[in-house]
Amino acid sequence: MSTPLMESLAATEAMSRIFSDASVLTVMLNVEVALARAEATCGVIPEHAANVIREVAQAMDLNVEELVREALRAGTPAIPLVRALTEKVRAKDQSAGDYVHWGSTSQDVVDTTLVLLLEQCRQVLARNHQRMQRGLRHLSEEHSQTAMLARTLLQPAPPITFGLKAAGWFAALRRGWSRVESRFAESKYLQFGGASGTLAGLGSHGIQVSEALANDLELRHPDAPWHAHRDRLAALLAALSIYTASLGKMALDIALLMQYEVGEAAEPGGDGRGGSSSMPNKQNPMACTLTIAASKRTPGLLANFLNGMLQEHERGLGGWQSEWTTVTAIVQAAGVAAESMVEVVEGLKVDADRMRRNIAATGGTMFAEKAVLAQAKEGVQNPEDFLGSAEVFRVRLLRGDD
Amino acid sequence: MSTPLMESLAATEAMSRIFSDASVLTVMLNVEVALARAEATCGVIPEHAANVIREVAQAMDLNVEELVREALRAGTPAIPLVRALTEKVRAKDQSAGDYVHWGSTSQDVVDTTLVLLLEQCRQVLARNHQRMQRGLRHLSEEHSQTAMLARTLLQPAPPITFGLKAAGWFAALRRGWSRVESRFAESKYLQFGGASGTLAGLGSHGIQVSEALANDLELRHPDAPWHAHRDRLAALLAALSIYTASLGKMALDIALLMQYEVGEAAEPGGDGRGGSSSMPNKQNPMACTLTIAASKRTPGLLANFLNGMLQEHERGLGGWQSEWTTVTAIVQAAGVAAESMVEVVEGLKVDADRMRRNIAATGGTMFAEKAVLAQAKEGVQNPEDFLGSAEVFRVRLLRGDD
Amino acid sequence: MSTPLMESLAATEAMSRIFSDASVLTVMLNVEVALARAEATCGVIPEHAANVIREVAQAMDLNVEELVREALRAGTPAIPLVRALTEKVRAKDQSAGDYVHWGSTSQDVVDTTLVLLLEQCRQVLARNHQRMQRGLRHLSEEHSQTAMLARTLLQPAPPITFGLKAAGWFAALRRGWSRVESRFAESKYLQFGGASGTLAGLGSHGIQVSEALANDLELRHPDAPWHAHRDRLAALLAALSIYTASLGKMALDIALLMQYEVGEAAEPGGDGRGGSSSMPNKQNPMACTLTIAASKRTPGLLANFLNGMLQEHERGLGGWQSEWTTVTAIVQAAGVAAESMVEVVEGLKVDADRMRRNIAATGGTMFAEKAVLAQAKEGVQNPEDFLGSAEVFRVRLLRGDD
Amino acid sequence: MSTPLMESLAATEAMSRIFSDASVLTVMLNVEVALARAEATCGVIPEHAANVIREVAQAMDLNVEELVREALRAGTPAIPLVRALTEKVRAKDQSAGDYVHWGSTSQDVVDTTLVLLLEQCRQVLARNHQRMQRGLRHLSEEHSQTAMLARTLLQPAPPITFGLKAAGWFAALRRGWSRVESRFAESKYLQFGGASGTLAGLGSHGIQVSEALANDLELRHPDAPWHAHRDRLAALLAALSIYTASLGKMALDIALLMQYEVGEAAEPGGDGRGGSSSMPNKQNPMACTLTIAASKRTPGLLANFLNGMLQEHERGLGGWQSEWTTVTAIVQAAGVAAESMVEVVEGLKVDADRMRRNIAATGGTMFAEKAVLAQAKEGVQNPEDFLGSAEVFRVRLLRGDD
Repeated sequence: MSTPLMESLAATEAMSRIFSDASVLTVMLNVEVALARAEATCGVIPEHAANVIREVAQAMDLNVEELVREALRAGTPAIPLVRALTEKVRAKDQSAGDYVHWGSTSQDVVDTTLVLLLEQCRQVLARNHQRMQRGLRHLSEEHSQTAMLARTLLQPAPPITFGLKAAGWFAALRRGWSRVESRFAESKYLQFGGASGTLAGLGSHGIQVSEALANDLELRHPDAPWHAHRDRLAALLAALSIYTASLGKMALDIALLMQYEVGEAAEPGGDGRGGSSSMPNKQNPMACTLTIAASKRTPGLLANFLNGMLQEHERGLGGWQSEWTTVTAIVQAAGVAAESMVEVVEGLKVDADRMRRNIAATGGTMFAEKAVLAQAKEGVQNPEDFLGSAEVFRVRLLRGDD
Repeated sequence: MSTPLMESLAATEAMSRIFSDASVLTVMLNVEVALARAEATCGVIPEHAANVIREVAQAMDLNVEELVREALRAGTPAIPLVRALTEKVRAKDQSAGDYVHWGSTSQDVVDTTLVLLLEQCRQVLARNHQRMQRGLRHLSEEHSQTAMLARTLLQPAPPITFGLKAAGWFAALRRGWSRVESRFAESKYLQFGGASGTLAGLGSHGIQVSEALANDLELRHPDAPWHAHRDRLAALLAALSIYTASLGKMALDIALLMQYEVGEAAEPGGDGRGGSSSMPNKQNPMACTLTIAASKRTPGLLANFLNGMLQEHERGLGGWQSEWTTVTAIVQAAGVAAESMVEVVEGLKVDADRMRRNIAATGGTMFAEKAVLAQAKEGVQNPEDFLGSAEVFRVRLLRGDD
Repeated sequence: MSTPLMESLAATEAMSRIFSDASVLTVMLNVEVALARAEATCGVIPEHAANVIREVAQAMDLNVEELVREALRAGTPAIPLVRALTEKVRAKDQSAGDYVHWGSTSQDVVDTTLVLLLEQCRQVLARNHQRMQRGLRHLSEEHSQTAMLARTLLQPAPPITFGLKAAGWFAALRRGWSRVESRFAESKYLQFGGASGTLAGLGSHGIQVSEALANDLELRHPDAPWHAHRDRLAALLAALSIYTASLGKMALDIALLMQYEVGEAAEPGGDGRGGSSSMPNKQNPMACTLTIAASKRTPGLLANFLNGMLQEHERGLGGWQSEWTTVTAIVQAAGVAAESMVEVVEGLKVDADRMRRNIAATGGTMFAEKAVLAQAKEGVQNPEDFLGSAEVFRVRLLRGDD
Repeated sequence: MSTPLMESLAATEAMSRIFSDASVLTVMLNVEVALARAEATCGVIPEHAANVIREVAQAMDLNVEELVREALRAGTPAIPLVRALTEKVRAKDQSAGDYVHWGSTSQDVVDTTLVLLLEQCRQVLARNHQRMQRGLRHLSEEHSQTAMLARTLLQPAPPITFGLKAAGWFAALRRGWSRVESRFAESKYLQFGGASGTLAGLGSHGIQVSEALANDLELRHPDAPWHAHRDRLAALLAALSIYTASLGKMALDIALLMQYEVGEAAEPGGDGRGGSSSMPNKQNPMACTLTIAASKRTPGLLANFLNGMLQEHERGLGGWQSEWTTVTAIVQAAGVAAESMVEVVEGLKVDADRMRRNIAATGGTMFAEKAVLAQAKEGVQNPEDFLGSAEVFRVRLLRGDD
């Protein structure tokens, strides 16, 4: 595993693996190999050169420490990687060395790599999302009749059902994921433009090579290179941030219900969850806490990405170079939040009895909605008489009626 | 006009009118009137009461200063407005007063008002967007063969055409606006839930009244009230921020081209634009500057909105109450940026000659792309020989091929 | 009053007055008058011209609507203001007109005006801060022995005293205000540099005029103009944001204590505070809510200001022009938060009895701190036996021992 | 080295070493050892236990991968570390195991560790700051008479000297570092409060142990634990962000001067700096680019920290847990920016000749400052005649006169 200790609360094991040095370098080399292959297929470079490049890349043993050091000087990891690859190819076949990275620019490799890594992240997120949706639907159905206090500004309000609350979470996440999915699809594009984004180095073969390369990497082929137009990535990161915020809202609701004085729901706990180093018996809402923490990290990160979008001319002066850690941190935040809330949703303990007692404890003051009072003839005994359209709304939310 | 001087660079006249006190109060009162009408239609309140409410609301003369002061104490402008309306209705017809705001909660009025105001903003933005698209398409076609230096990290790179650059801006804005439009549509929902979001005050008539009200206000009817689920608004604001950032990127490119030492393009100027209080002859890229300024304001505002999304239970404790100024400021920023760039695009002066001279001045060093050099047989005389797929990409960008 | 309705929850009456058109224009004209006076004193412009400028400025009747419109085109309100002033001066005395704004640039007037407005805001904030400190000290002393549950991650933990909690708020605000005060002092500088920041228009009289002007306006004289170096303002805004966040933390604590199920403290309410348009009996923590809302707006605004700090060469291209609304919104947020929390602190209802009952209700589970248990010989009857150094810490916090 | 490839542009080697797993764990264990020692000294735990804890901690061989995994579940790395340490101590001496982490809570260890790591970072930053100040002072002195165009909104304005420009950078960084230093000092506090921040587990020995521990770790002793009051850290991060922004402003200025069309200054380049994977001859302003990138990351990160400051009661629900990566990323950004700009400042190539030619090329239009023109008798031949107070300001900036 490759999560540094300093990031241990901000990353999942699954995604740390995707962003590990080994994984990133493998993808970068794959892109170079695919590029050579596409160019050979289109007759731009010799078939033989492409083969040598592939063989060398697949056996490549890189000094990562040195690579990282050189990347900081070069301003991109692609430069030292291409140099190292070229040297090794040249060592095997002098002439093949000339064709490494042919017609391409650093940003082509870096952006395409990022898109490919993001696709791996999407799969991790998708699995967790599906489990969460299933869990929430189940909770909502199970508690369709479980009355509880609504709370506005944290003060008691006329009752709802826990089923309605769960359906609200469910629908927000459904909408959120639908945006995330469509933004992943929208941003799953090859980056390939060469120095100025015109593929000038490929003469008249530009589009042909570009399409072959996109095809090989199973990426969409864009209308044109997007070196300095980052809106698609921005839209994806915005969607992920909004999705994470909806997870954060659910986590906050649950942590509030889990207060000792409220006691209406609780995280499952167990297996190292929620303990305290000073109070052995304590049960903390730790999965919710990590989710809230994640949702407090995404907004500023997204702001940073948007600020970076004002990229000068054909390649930005800092805006682009600031992106990698921002993108990684946002996706990891979504990952931690989703993984944590799957656990919460699947194991949530709901105390319907306490919910009913908490309603009773208010002595009916929260039924004092003007229009509700007008209907109340025989006093407040059954919260269920005051649920209005709660069940209708619940069903509509689960169906996705809007 | 109602833009305060302190906001004079951050607001357009058209949108300041939409967000003016008079406009906002009119919409709020319209919502109350429509609510009464829908409830009367569905038999929830007397027809007569709805009529009185309408008559009084239409003749309403409000003390805005007092209203603002009370709003700050109440934590929402809806409370003092409803109180004032109720008093006047009661003065005219004692019993009708009971039915003002029936079954509704402050947030219903405030959120629905916001949605209706945003729809007005959309229309302003749409007009500017269409003009900008037309202007950019024209620029791109006119300069399809105008060679100029690409610039990466602000250093010369192999040539592109100005037509390609304009097409890049065009396509980013087309994508951006398409997201904005779909998010406006997605968020154009009625808010109506009563105290807890269950329409408990309307008994079994909840959905019926809600649908009638949505219909009357020409809003979509949501699956359920969305008091504490702000993802749709967040997605709209994110889309507006990304659109503004793409405008900012275009503005920055043009301001850089307008540098005295580059001189390849210039804002039209004129009519009070771009002067200096100390240097009468100076021509500043002022429309671009205001656009860049706008695009530097949206990222943090969006971050604030996202942070506000963690709203507690059925109504947030601060997150919701922080929204209004944030939403207004983001929409105004998009408005200033769009209005400014329409002017720039429609009047842009392009100096194709200077572009060609700037290429020549580099002495061909920027043609030193490895793969390009391989093709250069007879030295660098015609930049046009090194444009690669620039024209193909340009055409694809205008068509929206991806 | 000049708070627009859309900003009614985000601005105080006192500060809206400071930032009103009338107030801003008065300060801008005062700066122009003081400039002419300083230049006349130093023999740079004729004494007579300075007198005419003063007379005209003091009688100036401006069309604000037109001014705002021209400001948006000019990219600064100073240009149309100087033009209007010059015209009127010229109408009275042709030759005096030449000396309006002599040797100065728009940014000189705008920045100096901002600094002078901020000084007015400081005074408002200082008054509220002093009241709050007094109130908190009183609360802390009064409840030095009032035991209550500590809560970590919203779960019960070994007891503290309410006096300690109040002392913690007190000390954070004391530290915060000390930073705010020193940053106000640090940024209270004249801006005066002319077109390029060299006072070239004043020949050899630059420093002399500059010092006279600073003196007249009761501002500090900087080592040099700071047109494109915004760090002092940034440091002030950061200090204000941190202070507001500490107010937000206090507000959140109180709102959590005010939950029906906890019931240990409550806002005073009254006079239009905390009502509900749907539930007449409800008591919302509205002053706390507005404070939390304010503290959710400052972080992104501060980020925007910091992003704007990368200002190009001698005057920025958008960064500077984006500042005004950001600065205003941050100061207003601090203002709303401070004003709201003064009210809360001065009227806070503390329920010591409920605090004790809430401790008892946990059945002693929160005393299960390992090291505490070691001391517990005879079971948990008196929370006071487990307060450790709470009182020592409380006293130190009030004294400011660190 | 421990910088992951994905962070290669956002971290320096020196700081990656400070935040490496080995370094962090060493500091955490040192804190536990010092705690035991302080408690033994004060007679709270047996001397023998403290010795065993020290011996075991110093020989500790931890499974980091497992630790990271458990940290994510526990919500803090302190819990698994304390558990692992306790087990090993117990294995050596059963009774000593009881005294590991005695009276302390996870946050005590984590916060104190962070403060100690930050002190290491301060030293790295201080060294770079001193070199930069020396370099800038030298540049400013050397070019005290080198005239160049001022540029406002990127348009030519009356001349300044390069010496003045460098002095402006110098002074902003001097001010910035002075804030950073005082905030480092302000935040260099021990965190030690036990479960609720009252040191209840230490009975009457709380303050005594706490002072001994602070003394041992060479940290300041706070008035009280600051578990949920994060203003000191926030002030440090704000100061670092502002300092980084001033570095970013300098980097942007230099990158703009390095434009081919301007050509007035250039980064030193060399040793892997500023190359291109597609254009071998290209010289990019790469150190400036990385600095700009760093300064585009801090604003949103700072916003995240400020948002996290609203921490509930005695320990936050997500706000605290979101801090670590934010703090690390801000300090690393400052580190990359400072290290990069030291290189730029020490090797900057200034082309005084080109500066003079660029002035001449404007044909004097930028001298058209109204007040300047009044002085111009014999036409514009010598830019030096129009420098106003440039030299006076330069000297004052270097001296720090304000």
